[in-house]
Amino acid sequence: MSDATPRPAGALRDFARRIFGAAGLAPDKARAVAHYLVEADMMGHTTHGLALAPWYLAGIDEGVVTRDGTPEVISDRGPAVCWRGRRLPGAWLAEQAMLLACARARDFGTATVVVGDSHHNGALAAYLPIATGQGLMASIASSSPSGAQVAPFGGLKGVMTPNPVAYGIPVPGRPILIDLSASITTVNLAQRMIRAGERYDHDWVMDAEGNPSRDPEVLTAGGTLLPTGGLDHGQKGYGLALAVEALTQGLAGYGRADAPRGTNAAMTITVHDPEAFGGARAFLRQTGWLAEACRSNPPRDPSRPVRLPGQAAQARRDRALAEGVTLHPGIWEALSAEAEKRGLGWAG
Amino acid sequence: MSDATPRPAGALRDFARRIFGAAGLAPDKARAVAHYLVEADMMGHTTHGLALAPWYLAGIDEGVVTRDGTPEVISDRGPAVCWRGRRLPGAWLAEQAMLLACARARDFGTATVVVGDSHHNGALAAYLPIATGQGLMASIASSSPSGAQVAPFGGLKGVMTPNPVAYGIPVPGRPILIDLSASITTVNLAQRMIRAGERYDHDWVMDAEGNPSRDPEVLTAGGTLLPTGGLDHGQKGYGLALAVEALTQGLAGYGRADAPRGTNAAMTITVHDPEAFGGARAFLRQTGWLAEACRSNPPRDPSRPVRLPGQAAQARRDRALAEGVTLHPGIWEALSAEAEKRGLGWAG
Repeated sequence: MSDATPRPAGALRDFARRIFGAAGLAPDKARAVAHYLVEADMMGHTTHGLALAPWYLAGIDEGVVTRDGTPEVISDRGPAVCWRGRRLPGAWLAEQAMLLACARARDFGTATVVVGDSHHNGALAAYLPIATGQGLMASIASSSPSGAQVAPFGGLKGVMTPNPVAYGIPVPGRPILIDLSASITTVNLAQRMIRAGERYDHDWVMDAEGNPSRDPEVLTAGGTLLPTGGLDHGQKGYGLALAVEALTQGLAGYGRADAPRGTNAAMTITVHDPEAFGGARAFLRQTGWLAEACRSNPPRDPSRPVRLPGQAAQARRDRALAEGVTLHPGIWEALSAEAEKRGLGWAG
Repeated sequence: MSDATPRPAGALRDFARRIFGAAGLAPDKARAVAHYLVEADMMGHTTHGLALAPWYLAGIDEGVVTRDGTPEVISDRGPAVCWRGRRLPGAWLAEQAMLLACARARDFGTATVVVGDSHHNGALAAYLPIATGQGLMASIASSSPSGAQVAPFGGLKGVMTPNPVAYGIPVPGRPILIDLSASITTVNLAQRMIRAGERYDHDWVMDAEGNPSRDPEVLTAGGTLLPTGGLDHGQKGYGLALAVEALTQGLAGYGRADAPRGTNAAMTITVHDPEAFGGARAFLRQTGWLAEACRSNPPRDPSRPVRLPGQAAQARRDRALAEGVTLHPGIWEALSAEAEKRGLGWAG
């Protein structure tokens, strides 16, 4: 089967779950990783979906990923919880942390769950519907102390990661799902473009001497991803990157200062229950007004109506659920090879 | 005395306090407004310091600003508090909300205080040291439902405001103070540049037809402030602007959907106590490592060392405290005129 073949989401999830299970992940971890990678593919975040599977599987084989168990509870003060993730799969930790943060926000009005020493957590937007589906507003900030591709604004040497923050906002109808990184582009996209020999349309990276560039290859020779705002106003991305480092690794008490070996992530989930503030109805009245003012805004290009963040992703997901998931080129071959290695076949 | 005359901070604060008091603000409100406007000037945020005094005074005269009283408590669930600010002075509300959020974060590990229907709150960074001085990490998000200078990305019509978020991060030594807006530049700076007939160095605004521009005058004819990231990657600023609208007006349950008359602001303060997560020492170990990695980063321009956000502002403040506050041109004349109107003289 070629890459253009749409495959049923359920069968694809099951295939991935069996591969991760065969690689040694405990059943609940294999389920979560498979589920959220396929979610990312369905939403169109194809660099953060099943494309990550071979890398995750290598991590399991090498012992970088912990196969089973629970996080160590560093603190639990009700609305404030901190876990040491013991490099368990990031998808499972993110799901569990989001579920806990939502439950605690219902009890206390707001809650923050911080997870340090996690393995990679994939596409943050995929975890937001856990909260928005309950009428809760959530944010997830994430950083990776094992990476250093973003320099402080005005500097040359990579210190931080793209440090995304995702926000899930309930509105009447489909939620707004925002995924916003502190650098213009991401590490995984750069790696894909390097493999494909592609260049950016604009100067989104900088070489080791500080020259702006469109060539992702500069990252392999000491170059860095430019912060959001670029050379013009990159103090904005720099500020956001610093804030995310402090919110994640700072509150976790584990990060770059410990020079972690192997892929390592820290994430901080904060949930607010509108009912505990001005009320759920009043919240939806404001966000509904805002969403409509954006959707009905006169577009700069008449052929491209103004969209809300997450709108296209949710439409893609609907289509994938109805018509099957079409994977980005190369992913199916890599996944099939991983299955074959473990004596598994596609049962779709 | 000309504008270049440095004036003692204490005398300047006292002068402003007496003017606001004579205009009718209750003593505690007059003190807070004077204090934080002078703080902003000392930190170099000169568009958000005493430059705002004539506008605030007009608001008091016109009854837009409430002169005395307390906010209405909409909800109080311990770590989750919501106030209706009754258009009390934003500086006083921001200070009180930050003090409460810090106290509650000490009790619960984290706390969020939301304030709707506030008057203008000035420079957010000025309130952060209340938290960082206690070793707490704070964020303040602010929006103004009475303004609409930022369009959704891809749209032409202003819907949102620059919607800044400020983050205060304790580090060993001076804190990091970040003030990050969702648009490239601000409304107050644009107004100052229009008065001075100045233009931006880059395309930071867009006219009503969607043409990028360096001329702030376009804002007076249906133009908009470009979101952070500009036309290249403005979906980032757009996402942040939406998140801030929801965090502030959404949680407050009061905002654009109510079409408030007169200057109106909403703000949301969230505080995290590192001691309730991975521990205060572990937090400072991470943020100290990060701060040093930024400060010692090889600079792109050898004559401009890499700085941490808030570093220059705190150095300016030190200098102003030692040598006096030098106001931006025009501010002293305007302030003196306001004093004279009320029969007050400078006692510096």
